[in-house]
Amino acid sequence: MQLDWQLGHAPSHDALPERWIPAAVPGAVQLDWARAEDWPPYWLAEESLRYRWMEDVWWTYRTRFTVPAPEPYGVVRFEAGGGDYRFAVLLNGTVVHEQEGMYSPFAVDLTAHAGLAVELAVRFEPAPKSRLSPEDRSQANRAFKPPVSYGWDFHPRLIPLGLWQPAAVVAHPPLRLESAEGTYRLNDNFSAATLDLRCLLEPQAGARLHWQLLAPDGERIVLERELPANKAELTWRDELTWPELWWPHDHGLQPLYTHVVRLVDAAGAVRAERRWRTGFRRARLVQYPGQWNTPAGHSFPKPRTEAPITLEINGRRVFAKGSNWVAPEIFPCTIDAARLEPLLRLARDSHFNILRCWGGAAVMPEPFFTLADELGLMVWQEFTLACNRYPDAKAYLDVVDRESRTILRRLRPHPCIVLWCGGNELFNNWSGMDDQALVLRLLDRNCLELDAATPFLPTSPVGGMAHGHYVFWDQETSREVWSMFQQCAATAYTEFAVPGAANADVLRRILPPGELWPPRASGSWKHHHAFESWTPGHHLCLPVLQRYFGPIDSLERLVELSQWMQGEGLRGVYEEARRQKPRASMALNWCLVEPWPAAANLSLVCWPAEPKASLPAVAASCRPVLASARIARFQWGPGDIFDPELWLLNDRYVPLPSLAVEAVIEAGDRRIPLLSWKSPAGARNTNVCGPRAHLVLPELGVGRFVLLVSVAGHPELESRYTLSFRRTERHAQARPMNLG
Amino acid sequence: MQLDWQLGHAPSHDALPERWIPAAVPGAVQLDWARAEDWPPYWLAEESLRYRWMEDVWWTYRTRFTVPAPEPYGVVRFEAGGGDYRFAVLLNGTVVHEQEGMYSPFAVDLTAHAGLAVELAVRFEPAPKSRLSPEDRSQANRAFKPPVSYGWDFHPRLIPLGLWQPAAVVAHPPLRLESAEGTYRLNDNFSAATLDLRCLLEPQAGARLHWQLLAPDGERIVLERELPANKAELTWRDELTWPELWWPHDHGLQPLYTHVVRLVDAAGAVRAERRWRTGFRRARLVQYPGQWNTPAGHSFPKPRTEAPITLEINGRRVFAKGSNWVAPEIFPCTIDAARLEPLLRLARDSHFNILRCWGGAAVMPEPFFTLADELGLMVWQEFTLACNRYPDAKAYLDVVDRESRTILRRLRPHPCIVLWCGGNELFNNWSGMDDQALVLRLLDRNCLELDAATPFLPTSPVGGMAHGHYVFWDQETSREVWSMFQQCAATAYTEFAVPGAANADVLRRILPPGELWPPRASGSWKHHHAFESWTPGHHLCLPVLQRYFGPIDSLERLVELSQWMQGEGLRGVYEEARRQKPRASMALNWCLVEPWPAAANLSLVCWPAEPKASLPAVAASCRPVLASARIARFQWGPGDIFDPELWLLNDRYVPLPSLAVEAVIEAGDRRIPLLSWKSPAGARNTNVCGPRAHLVLPELGVGRFVLLVSVAGHPELESRYTLSFRRTERHAQARPMNLG
Repeated sequence: MQLDWQLGHAPSHDALPERWIPAAVPGAVQLDWARAEDWPPYWLAEESLRYRWMEDVWWTYRTRFTVPAPEPYGVVRFEAGGGDYRFAVLLNGTVVHEQEGMYSPFAVDLTAHAGLAVELAVRFEPAPKSRLSPEDRSQANRAFKPPVSYGWDFHPRLIPLGLWQPAAVVAHPPLRLESAEGTYRLNDNFSAATLDLRCLLEPQAGARLHWQLLAPDGERIVLERELPANKAELTWRDELTWPELWWPHDHGLQPLYTHVVRLVDAAGAVRAERRWRTGFRRARLVQYPGQWNTPAGHSFPKPRTEAPITLEINGRRVFAKGSNWVAPEIFPCTIDAARLEPLLRLARDSHFNILRCWGGAAVMPEPFFTLADELGLMVWQEFTLACNRYPDAKAYLDVVDRESRTILRRLRPHPCIVLWCGGNELFNNWSGMDDQALVLRLLDRNCLELDAATPFLPTSPVGGMAHGHYVFWDQETSREVWSMFQQCAATAYTEFAVPGAANADVLRRILPPGELWPPRASGSWKHHHAFESWTPGHHLCLPVLQRYFGPIDSLERLVELSQWMQGEGLRGVYEEARRQKPRASMALNWCLVEPWPAAANLSLVCWPAEPKASLPAVAASCRPVLASARIARFQWGPGDIFDPELWLLNDRYVPLPSLAVEAVIEAGDRRIPLLSWKSPAGARNTNVCGPRAHLVLPELGVGRFVLLVSVAGHPELESRYTLSFRRTERHAQARPMNLG
Repeated sequence: MQLDWQLGHAPSHDALPERWIPAAVPGAVQLDWARAEDWPPYWLAEESLRYRWMEDVWWTYRTRFTVPAPEPYGVVRFEAGGGDYRFAVLLNGTVVHEQEGMYSPFAVDLTAHAGLAVELAVRFEPAPKSRLSPEDRSQANRAFKPPVSYGWDFHPRLIPLGLWQPAAVVAHPPLRLESAEGTYRLNDNFSAATLDLRCLLEPQAGARLHWQLLAPDGERIVLERELPANKAELTWRDELTWPELWWPHDHGLQPLYTHVVRLVDAAGAVRAERRWRTGFRRARLVQYPGQWNTPAGHSFPKPRTEAPITLEINGRRVFAKGSNWVAPEIFPCTIDAARLEPLLRLARDSHFNILRCWGGAAVMPEPFFTLADELGLMVWQEFTLACNRYPDAKAYLDVVDRESRTILRRLRPHPCIVLWCGGNELFNNWSGMDDQALVLRLLDRNCLELDAATPFLPTSPVGGMAHGHYVFWDQETSREVWSMFQQCAATAYTEFAVPGAANADVLRRILPPGELWPPRASGSWKHHHAFESWTPGHHLCLPVLQRYFGPIDSLERLVELSQWMQGEGLRGVYEEARRQKPRASMALNWCLVEPWPAAANLSLVCWPAEPKASLPAVAASCRPVLASARIARFQWGPGDIFDPELWLLNDRYVPLPSLAVEAVIEAGDRRIPLLSWKSPAGARNTNVCGPRAHLVLPELGVGRFVLLVSVAGHPELESRYTLSFRRTERHAQARPMNLG
């Protein structure tokens, strides 16, 4: 039975709302209120500032209905998928349930009220805050609630609250299935999977539990069992021989099996059914080859080796290329399959094989993982902790314990999940946590108990790994992004970024016309993160753009230059990380898409799903096999010695034949041959390093030129790097821009 | 009821022993057999080689007795504290219990046999070996059994087996206490401890459980409660305000409270009683001050910070000075309070405040922890894993799960235990394990569940810490021990060593007279680890001694030189580690005493409990406050620039006043003033760095000289470093030694 909801707010838990508005469930109090007030979209200009008061009031949902009568010995319940964040359920004014935490479903038994009219209310506390100021993410440091909502360098402060998951009144027959879960363990050579089924139910004499496992075609039955449904807990163990294995899309297929569990009563009628899909894969984190022979391992006093971070899927080391994933929307209730599918397809089409679901945001809803399973995208899933110091306090740990178990139980059937992680940057100084934090030990324990076969990291980065940098040009060290990474030797680059402006049409959509040009460090440009996000110049980075190109005279040119630098900058990092294989095994930029339209930020895709011009360069750098060049820097000039080093990068489990590689400069109509290289044959999943060119650059007479690295007979392996050329004349024709 | 035991061995599990000998329980099969055969002690010469076959046969203990009748409704059981390692209990020839693991007690219910004559046997499998060769510690890599017994560079191969714990037949009344455990949690400001009591019992109508907590004086009752003993599980929570806190001996007192739990029947008779002591302390691992501002923390791409390793006891950072602890005996059954007390007193008298109970050896019996509690020695307790790659296999994990829970339940009341640790050097290349190892995640989980308030380390070393070096002079890098550590910047030095020969009288006791001089790399010298232990020259290190001193002509001089270098070498490491405070926070040498008499090894005390001459130098370096000198090297000569740097080291929580420090050289009768330093006042727990001397050394005309650093009015702070002087003439008078 669906319910009609009303929503109101009050200044305290015992005050009554003065006004009631219609409410959507699933939804968020902010969206309901904005709808009732007919406000413009929250992502326009500085609209989101209006919502600030909503985090500090008590919101109450209410609904009135007559409780339907269940079958004899059946039950009728109010069932909800979740409430965000601390709330009480009131039945006819009496509290019947209290909860903290958005992920765990809840239910209220209404059987005793069958046939009666009732009022059911869900009263939400204000957004949790551990202190009144500063008004930032640190207020979320005692809650298992996404800190990103409290404001981040790409996210306005807007803290969702309310019934964000479906809620309904449901009548159940006496014979009912409370839960059905399947887990498995692959043996060492993948020839068999041991399957464990566990069902909780309300048993009945003569009833039977029927379990089927369907093949990836969705029809063929590969396992079929029946058990008497005569106990509250039924478990069954079985073995499947030679299961088809699930692979990331760049290494194989994505066969998905379907579990079907049915409760059949004595008369043969199906009274309950659960279906879910799963895939069989083994995910491990392993050391890189030669790990044990690093220089640090040689001399006394000896340290430990670095933490393992190379993903091994079904026995095969996989170089992880991908992106960090925040959320495509500020309000998780609006994230559905239709919203997700184009984004995940973009990721796959960009040759990404992994997404890191960052702990600052909410755990994604089911369709995200279903799509990732289908598309062969691996998922690194973090719990909801980021950039804070979370306490050892029992009340907090109890919430995390229940919520994390809910998440683990829900997500573990998905083969896409190859790594659990406590949260983001917890072992860095801005968080101040360390290995002894009880919440991380608790999360490790829950992962061990509920999904021991999937690796666990307490946080990212751990030993050997690195986060950052987030710039094209670092003013502090006077280094450019490429050389910064060429001088680094991390085992995994799990966050790095180059800023890029939003597409011009996005800017026109979100900024009031009067503010559009020139960009100013105030108003909507600032509110949309182009200025004073993270550091004063970020994320638009006008001084850096001007350092390379001089004054910039139009919005279109600003966007074009910014996205060019973003694409080439990131391409250089991805390819450098790959050149550092096998020591390095991951390259994940920050980030694919962000939850609202920023004027400038670190993402590759503008909200809602419009790729920036930088995405194709990144996609090219993530092709499984490609010709690559190690280039010292982005901007060159006449007389400079241009000396790119040629490489063939190969992440496929197929050997590379000897190839004829050619490097030329294309500048306008000119083609300047640089180098020819007959590469030696290369082993599978192994790069080949080639020679270094050496050319004193002439005056090219252009502002940019292309380094083309091509492979005879293999146009699909060719790479084109568009580099900046510093003309000898000054950029006198450009009009200086007022930077406000 | 005590039992008479017989022991025999057979080549397979179904063969019967041909010969039965009397057996001691608790004991070890090896000790019984040697006694029956009247062999010389196993520590003599090469005697221990005789025992090799004993690890590969099946040993059976048997006893015959008439089962006593218990009271009506009571039970009678065979109860044993443990069996080493895999065994079956047979009652009248039928297997009634099977177990793997030495730590968990076991029991067999004999009630049904009351009044009958029975034969009870315990049949032990051969020592567990995961493979036949090599015959070394790696054979123990699938067992929770001390790998040290399989042979180590200070331990002969001798693998204890048998009933190593007390065993008896016990009649219990119907009202009985199966277990009683008390845990506590201190609040943040130490003003209250929440106490939890949990008892498992056989309940009885009208019976009561009586619980008392006695004050440290053993008499005053600080808490007293009574509960009806009417349930199989009774729990009780109470609060103790302002408990007296337990401290390491160098920071405070060791108040120990006593729990007394009694079961009283309806008639008022005490039918069961348990007593145990506990102490209240909070132990944490914390970051060193400034940790967040290290150079590594500044630049992008950024790594994580180092793992916290500074011990904080009751809110106070404590510099941990101590030693690694293996075991004082090869056979754990022989380790009792009388054996332990002189050794732990030596540790305390040497100003050690911590012992690291190394994972290669067995977890010590109860008296070790009782003594450590009383003496104020902190204990770092490892589980039984060392230098192996332990598998993720379920059968192994099940054993570790049960055994580690037994250990945790037994030891957690002891305030001395400030740190749990998975095992030794597991993240180093000779072990090949890493953070994803399931056994370490399991141990972390069990520690979290059973003793969350005590920190857990997966292994030693982890990030920032270091093990080694184990030499005075490193041939590979041509570095001496002092400069090696002066150039290192670890957060904790949890293993380091300088070898030293055994005392001359020990050598005369263990080596056959014909082998005594000169030492040879064969026979008993080698068997007692003087040669080819770890590396060919170890542990006697004759080439190093000769490098410094030329030929050596007598056993006494050999021992004297070796122990001199050991003492001065170690003193330099302890003091250097302390100078590196607060970044460094631990200095633990390898080791205090080893389990049998080595001819040369890395310990400070000869077996059984005879200090080497090196111990006083180490003890001096560990005084809470002392004047110290940072000296570049051990051996000097005429014309060298002697430039020690003066320091005042202070680990006390008391500020240092300004002091008058004086450094002089004493050479024979000569006193050469070096430096006077009026130190500034220093903060509590903070060192003060002073000036550096600068003297061109004259010909001193002696082979050794003393650098005396004294403090006016404080003779207790004075330090004397005995250094070697290289005379200009050659050591022509010494007779070259034949090195065999």
